[in-house]
Amino acid sequence: MTELIQLQDIEAARAALPSYIRRTPIVPLARESSEIGAEKLFLKCENLQVTGAYKVRAASTMLNALADAERARGVVLTSSGNFAQAFAYAGRSLNVPITVVMLDHTSAYKVAATKGHGADVYLCGTDALQRQPTVRRLATERGLIAIDTWEEPPITAGHGSIGLEIVEDFEEVEQVLVPVSSGGVAAGIATAVKERRPDIKVIGVQPERANAAYVSLERGEPTAIDYWDTIADGLSAVRPGEFPFRHLQRYLDDIVLIREVDIANAFGTLLTRAKLLGEPAGVVAAAAFLAGKVDPSLTTVAALTGGNLTPNVMQRLLDMAETE
Amino acid sequence: MTELIQLQDIEAARAALPSYIRRTPIVPLARESSEIGAEKLFLKCENLQVTGAYKVRAASTMLNALADAERARGVVLTSSGNFAQAFAYAGRSLNVPITVVMLDHTSAYKVAATKGHGADVYLCGTDALQRQPTVRRLATERGLIAIDTWEEPPITAGHGSIGLEIVEDFEEVEQVLVPVSSGGVAAGIATAVKERRPDIKVIGVQPERANAAYVSLERGEPTAIDYWDTIADGLSAVRPGEFPFRHLQRYLDDIVLIREVDIANAFGTLLTRAKLLGEPAGVVAAAAFLAGKVDPSLTTVAALTGGNLTPNVMQRLLDMAETE
Repeated sequence: MTELIQLQDIEAARAALPSYIRRTPIVPLARESSEIGAEKLFLKCENLQVTGAYKVRAASTMLNALADAERARGVVLTSSGNFAQAFAYAGRSLNVPITVVMLDHTSAYKVAATKGHGADVYLCGTDALQRQPTVRRLATERGLIAIDTWEEPPITAGHGSIGLEIVEDFEEVEQVLVPVSSGGVAAGIATAVKERRPDIKVIGVQPERANAAYVSLERGEPTAIDYWDTIADGLSAVRPGEFPFRHLQRYLDDIVLIREVDIANAFGTLLTRAKLLGEPAGVVAAAAFLAGKVDPSLTTVAALTGGNLTPNVMQRLLDMAETE
Repeated sequence: MTELIQLQDIEAARAALPSYIRRTPIVPLARESSEIGAEKLFLKCENLQVTGAYKVRAASTMLNALADAERARGVVLTSSGNFAQAFAYAGRSLNVPITVVMLDHTSAYKVAATKGHGADVYLCGTDALQRQPTVRRLATERGLIAIDTWEEPPITAGHGSIGLEIVEDFEEVEQVLVPVSSGGVAAGIATAVKERRPDIKVIGVQPERANAAYVSLERGEPTAIDYWDTIADGLSAVRPGEFPFRHLQRYLDDIVLIREVDIANAFGTLLTRAKLLGEPAGVVAAAAFLAGKVDPSLTTVAALTGGNLTPNVMQRLLDMAETE
């Protein structure tokens, strides 16, 4: 395994992306009428990506990276969120059987969406620690290829295609904001942006209440937190992945924390001003700008990473933002 | 005055659009996972247009069409909705003073948005019939140019730029759906599409409860209805404009009606599936497709004309859709 992904790996991943991957637009966000035409914040709209989130890029790249014989056998992975739908969709499109291991209490919405794309869902009980062992067991029993979405270099390379599109489609950009959980998409985007344009600042964003990468970067090594509690459940990794973490150390200029109400307010602002629906984990990068956590004078692109959320979560966000 | 706008008028209007007008994306809408990649419905996203609605195109075209001396004097018009913000924004950008006549009970949200773009708002009491007389009086008293947004040919030409973008950016299109109120945007889009591509079906859409153009097309002349009651208050014209009506007669293949619950359901589907916020008047074209009112086998573009709505209306739409 290489220590770090290289720019040419990302470029190769992007060149190999299937035609169903959308080159999503970058749109300005004005908080009020007087800002229109002088916007500093722009959104890279991966909520408009097929499946409603960015992860289908990396899932496709991962499946592309397998040998034909491996693709024919099929893959197994665990995901409670957008990666499940992303692999399910990419698998169906690329004719690779997909099995996703989920906890019993995964929301019916996510299970249905994953099955809707044609994947097999395997429920493994209620213990999160049983997910990876179940993946390995199914791989052995069924002859499937086990994928660890945190540690596979093609995953990071696939995410990096977002960074290439930002610097190519929006040359004026001076600052890029990315959400951080296990660190994959932040690693990919930061590597692509910094290797192409070292002058651009790249800043990671985490919720205060799910700050494993923040703590890890302070300590200089991947460190587990013992507690998370954020409405952005897509950012619930209790430690960063080993592979992406090395990229965060090298390429991130900074990492900042935001409050829960910042997430709710950003959700409302994106909806009412930009007319775009973002899921909680998807709006945290924009939230850092809107809450004043980063330099507001720089022309900034925030990765709006997804828009998959339930009506219940939408209502909670609207209520939180209104009662600030 | 010419009888009908010509294709070259629309092409000239489009060529003269200021750089702040966005060439908005056309995105697919899948109602469920299994439809992804085989979508028949696409959205022309004018909710992502500057000011959150399509009317800034026509407002800019109208101001472009004035003589320098007229622009220096400034214009006055009446609008209770998106045209107010559109002229306010275009006026500020093109350095033309704008006065908008509104009723006393116009929502504070709309008044604030219009003033936020730098326009002067003049409240004329509570009688809707006093709006045009007030426009004419202010024009005389203050030396302003009076604009009747229903009847000016440059307005229709400006709207038509949307139709050009649809046929140029999405050659596969077989059917175009447009909302109809006074008929301006439907006239512009239908003219552009039909003159460029006579093979494409163009169908107008109205709420059952605000069906003036539907009645007028049946009778063969602009006809006033005596009652309207739809959540799509942007489609509340009680009769079509004389000038756009002639275009509807010539270019529309059909006009269909939708129920209130169709509007609410379309709002919810666009939000959760396409991640896009549309106002009630903005989603009616898509609603006609989603409710089965038009041929579902044709590759269809629905004009998603705007995304400006209050949290209160958003809540009403979500409640209506949920309780179907």
